[in-house]
Amino acid sequence: MNAASSPPRWPAGFRSVSGCCGIKAADHADLALIASDRPASAAGVFTTNRVQAAPVTLCRERLNRAAPMRAWVVNSGIANACTGAEGREDAECMAAAAAAAAGCTPEEVFVSSTGSIGPRLPVDKIVPALSTLGEGLREDAVRETAQAIMTTDTRPKYGSCTLAVDGRPVTITAVAKGAGMIEPDMATMLAFFATDAAVEPEALNAALRTAVDQSFNRISVDGDRSTNDTVLLLANGAAGNAPLRETHGDWAAFADRLESLSLEMAKAIVGDGEGLSRTVTVAVTGACSRTDADRAARAVANSPLNKTAWAGGRPNWGRVMDALGYSGAEFDPERVTIDYNGCPAVREGRAALDDPDRLKRAAAAPHLDLSIDLGAGSASAVIYTCDLTAEYVRINL
Amino acid sequence: MNAASSPPRWPAGFRSVSGCCGIKAADHADLALIASDRPASAAGVFTTNRVQAAPVTLCRERLNRAAPMRAWVVNSGIANACTGAEGREDAECMAAAAAAAAGCTPEEVFVSSTGSIGPRLPVDKIVPALSTLGEGLREDAVRETAQAIMTTDTRPKYGSCTLAVDGRPVTITAVAKGAGMIEPDMATMLAFFATDAAVEPEALNAALRTAVDQSFNRISVDGDRSTNDTVLLLANGAAGNAPLRETHGDWAAFADRLESLSLEMAKAIVGDGEGLSRTVTVAVTGACSRTDADRAARAVANSPLNKTAWAGGRPNWGRVMDALGYSGAEFDPERVTIDYNGCPAVREGRAALDDPDRLKRAAAAPHLDLSIDLGAGSASAVIYTCDLTAEYVRINL
Repeated sequence: MNAASSPPRWPAGFRSVSGCCGIKAADHADLALIASDRPASAAGVFTTNRVQAAPVTLCRERLNRAAPMRAWVVNSGIANACTGAEGREDAECMAAAAAAAAGCTPEEVFVSSTGSIGPRLPVDKIVPALSTLGEGLREDAVRETAQAIMTTDTRPKYGSCTLAVDGRPVTITAVAKGAGMIEPDMATMLAFFATDAAVEPEALNAALRTAVDQSFNRISVDGDRSTNDTVLLLANGAAGNAPLRETHGDWAAFADRLESLSLEMAKAIVGDGEGLSRTVTVAVTGACSRTDADRAARAVANSPLNKTAWAGGRPNWGRVMDALGYSGAEFDPERVTIDYNGCPAVREGRAALDDPDRLKRAAAAPHLDLSIDLGAGSASAVIYTCDLTAEYVRINL
Repeated sequence: MNAASSPPRWPAGFRSVSGCCGIKAADHADLALIASDRPASAAGVFTTNRVQAAPVTLCRERLNRAAPMRAWVVNSGIANACTGAEGREDAECMAAAAAAAAGCTPEEVFVSSTGSIGPRLPVDKIVPALSTLGEGLREDAVRETAQAIMTTDTRPKYGSCTLAVDGRPVTITAVAKGAGMIEPDMATMLAFFATDAAVEPEALNAALRTAVDQSFNRISVDGDRSTNDTVLLLANGAAGNAPLRETHGDWAAFADRLESLSLEMAKAIVGDGEGLSRTVTVAVTGACSRTDADRAARAVANSPLNKTAWAGGRPNWGRVMDALGYSGAEFDPERVTIDYNGCPAVREGRAALDDPDRLKRAAAAPHLDLSIDLGAGSASAVIYTCDLTAEYVRINL
């Protein structure tokens, strides 16, 4: 997705621009603005952390107005979290400056920040930078925008898909960032989706929630949830279709594409996890309930001892059994089945000693599909994760 | 506690012996037997992991008989976990051989195993080794016993304390092992307490549960709970006191000493945490409930990003705020106070910028006392933990 021959473009009516305001080192983009040339339906999903950054609070409030929105402004390098009333003022100030650049009202602008928790935003640098950015808004600046929102991601993350709605071409384009906390003090995953489809606000919200639940809520790098996590979606209707809702004939296709693109972005975040040497998909089946399946998958995915075993490329299934056992999921240990990349490791809760050498080879592959059947029911869940390396520790010291 | 001039001794009536049965490399002790010369009241606390090793199941059942017990046999190197019905038979076989050596019945013997999950116990080696061990039982073999139950702990863990009950001297002696999972496939924390006090079984059980709750249940190296965790306590009454119960005048002193010794053993385990460079005490106060305080302390203690920041000796309080925020505890972020070794880091949820250099020095000390006041109530909780280093990852690859 990151290697198109011609520069990727936003859906009709959207443009973006990035710039440097000096939060990061010189010549490193740290500011981005994405704007729609017309009012757009908006949906958003935010961190559930009790400690929420000022821009997250601001986005929530603007979304609750249920009014059309026009733009998203984001800075990288400072998270504007744990900054009190001044942090809120700074976020509003940033929205106002972005509104002037985008040609809309401050209330029509979403704000996001990502980076260090604690410091105040240098609005004295951000506001002047934004005042000149408006002129540079371009339809093909997707990649630059994805780059400007990186903290210490090693590569920009963006993607696009098209479908037909009412026989008209519709595009969904996304930019995302996040890699755990690659550099000291850096946090947050952010994703922004734009589409030129016309979508009714309630349906848009439902589609985004479902998509996020199946993608961004299915990934884990280190189990630490940030204060700034934000996913936003704007639908500006420039495609001219009859507004999408659940009863529209093309609704399922739209929701499906949105979910696929979300999953692509979510996997790109895991694939850029800090210091990783191996990605791992933990798939739990045979659980009594979806909640149990989810608990079991997360316990395995977040266990330091499993993560280090994956870094070593070893089929250490005892650690998988151990994590399942304390996950809180209900099951009978003697009915558990575990496969490493399709190779049997555990049958009936004990070593499946079919071919130990084949199992070792399977566990050492660059990507690991870990399939766990609890043998207790019919519910399932998947978590996309990565290993824990000495490099992760060095990065986060 | 580990450097007495004369070899440490068991309480009156207890003796122990260790030996090599060949599970570990040659000449490394991997088998231990502790026996009382008379029947003893017994209490035990075991892992809550749904996947429980065969010896844990056996210990639970023997404890449920509520009959006096005589001995504890333990092997290191193999956990006898995920081994099905054969694993259970192996544990019973080991108990029978230990009973012959200790001069009691098989039902009077507790069994523990620690080491790799999956392989079967080599009972063909364990049984012959036990048959010759009985002759070597000694009153001063505490240290050797602590050594024999180590997997890859870097040092033996044992301790002792005395008090007067009915004016008679009473001793409590403990051996423990555990360091997270220092070597690939190695697991489990074990602790065994012996006292020559006479204690009524129900009171003994209550005292042990309270002691464990305030000590072993307050430590965390990596958040992974093992399939084999076991704490056992035998009280053989050789001191000749009137049996202790809650109404006895010396009860509080006994319970208090037991708790102190438990905490000493628990801290010894954390202090030997795999690859650690710094121990950390996370103390949460001002919580709405004990549960909230516990959740908050555990979230901070188990967060990879906090653990790596501690390894770097950095006062990265944003990561503490982040973990508190997703802990599930109720609090207002703007009322949070955080100190690093007594130095203010956070006041009212924001940076306490009293003296940044002093804060940096405080965070870099060999031990970190992290004090967190949630400002929401009066409940508190403490977790004893350690940092996460690149060495931990290398050890567990």
